[in-house]
Amino acid sequence: MSGPDTTDAPDPDERSTAYALTDALRLAPGPVRLADVPTDATPGFDGDKAAGQRALADLGAELADLQERMYADAYTGGTRRVLVVLQGMDTSGKGGVVEKAIGLLSPNGLRLTSFKKPTDEELAHDFLWRIDRALPGPGMVGVFDRSHYEDVLVHRVHGLVDEAELERRYDAIVDWEKALVAEGTVVLKCFLHVSAATQRERLLARLDDPDKQWKFKPGDIDERQHWDDYQRAYAVALERCHTDAAPWYVVPADRKWFRNWAVAQLLVEALRGMALEWPAPDYDVAEQRARLEREHE
Amino acid sequence: MSGPDTTDAPDPDERSTAYALTDALRLAPGPVRLADVPTDATPGFDGDKAAGQRALADLGAELADLQERMYADAYTGGTRRVLVVLQGMDTSGKGGVVEKAIGLLSPNGLRLTSFKKPTDEELAHDFLWRIDRALPGPGMVGVFDRSHYEDVLVHRVHGLVDEAELERRYDAIVDWEKALVAEGTVVLKCFLHVSAATQRERLLARLDDPDKQWKFKPGDIDERQHWDDYQRAYAVALERCHTDAAPWYVVPADRKWFRNWAVAQLLVEALRGMALEWPAPDYDVAEQRARLEREHE
Repeated sequence: MSGPDTTDAPDPDERSTAYALTDALRLAPGPVRLADVPTDATPGFDGDKAAGQRALADLGAELADLQERMYADAYTGGTRRVLVVLQGMDTSGKGGVVEKAIGLLSPNGLRLTSFKKPTDEELAHDFLWRIDRALPGPGMVGVFDRSHYEDVLVHRVHGLVDEAELERRYDAIVDWEKALVAEGTVVLKCFLHVSAATQRERLLARLDDPDKQWKFKPGDIDERQHWDDYQRAYAVALERCHTDAAPWYVVPADRKWFRNWAVAQLLVEALRGMALEWPAPDYDVAEQRARLEREHE
Repeated sequence: MSGPDTTDAPDPDERSTAYALTDALRLAPGPVRLADVPTDATPGFDGDKAAGQRALADLGAELADLQERMYADAYTGGTRRVLVVLQGMDTSGKGGVVEKAIGLLSPNGLRLTSFKKPTDEELAHDFLWRIDRALPGPGMVGVFDRSHYEDVLVHRVHGLVDEAELERRYDAIVDWEKALVAEGTVVLKCFLHVSAATQRERLLARLDDPDKQWKFKPGDIDERQHWDDYQRAYAVALERCHTDAAPWYVVPADRKWFRNWAVAQLLVEALRGMALEWPAPDYDVAEQRARLEREHE
């Protein structure tokens, strides 16, 4: 590794600079043990909260530029798009990421879907039906706040479906995501990883703040009793649906500032990887300019 | 008006302070003469471009707070919502307003619809069908980039429908907007008012900038030949559909910074007028707190 020191040599750190966080947070292959992944770490970031908040704000301009390039690409016939999937336990900060990280994007070119308890119409279809209908159009950044993964998480924890149906769903998710990627969609699946202690603190904070009490439901504490089951269900889902086409990223989420920066940074790196160029005009620029000039004659 | 000078007296300027821009930009009743409304004015704002950009950024916190209050209200059963309708000639800055002003809102609680040329399915229905389907849900801020007004603008200018059908549509729009307001929706209709000279400058700027050439279509210059017809069509639409329930606001839009600030400020004033309070919890806070506390016993 100690080659000649020439400034013309390709920078061996180029990959690690442009895609550093993608590489750092990408789930390792093999058995998933969430308990071994620290929830309060800040991998890939060297700085404190104030620095993290500045770093997030500083991503705004590049994100807006990349987003507009993808939008422009579709405007002229391109089909590329991005889908960000946000999953995590209650209070892990899916809504916070949408507000602070996704909020850096322009509403033009953004399609957010927050999946709630399925409606009767949705329940009458396969679990992927409502997901399909929420996909972003060409050139758009789609964001799922919860997703098709709920159907292998809640359903597993509460035994709403049997093991065979769960197996079918893992396979269906893998196939569906692969087809999406083959069509030109970049799929960025982020698991916001918090500790049980952090969830407890955040639930207490909601109870203690009159501006936040509306976010709390007594059912949140009921669900919390299934914490370990949920962690196991997440481990299985992440392991079964972690593919080269659509890998999972585990985002330590005990620190809100890191979590928000990390998702924005992952999105920037994903868009960078698409090498988006401004489309060339499909008309004669000089001719159109002349038409406008002639108005003054 | 020269009453006793006591600090306890209600401030006669309170209305004009909290709703100053609403009052300043609201279309006057009676015949509409757009040529008499300056496109480069900055009514209700005392400052230059830099001050306007700062004022816009400064609205972010209040907008986010008011938006979340409305969202919380719906989360606990409320039905109030806001619909912002953006209309204006090509290059008037509908997209810019979405990016810079609407972009201050959280994507949570925002529903943006950009109306394009109607699809075959949409054409098979009445013109309000697709509009109805794009309405924001309770607690949401809906934004229409173009709207049902296109059906009395383009259609009038190009003679796509006859006078009787246009008359039917003005009436239908008035009735539809009144019903919406009666249901608890605040409708904020903004006409972004630019001059023909400004449009020409902006079209030239698109042609001259490789990053913007994708936004230009030769058809934009064709449509420009109908400038006066469009101004007349706008004047009639504004006049016919200017109601107490859903008034029109004319936003001078030759200066981008003023236009962006003005729409954000109109939205803040509209949300202020809803007197949104954080909803009271529908559970016993102390009891739920105790449940979480018991975890440590």
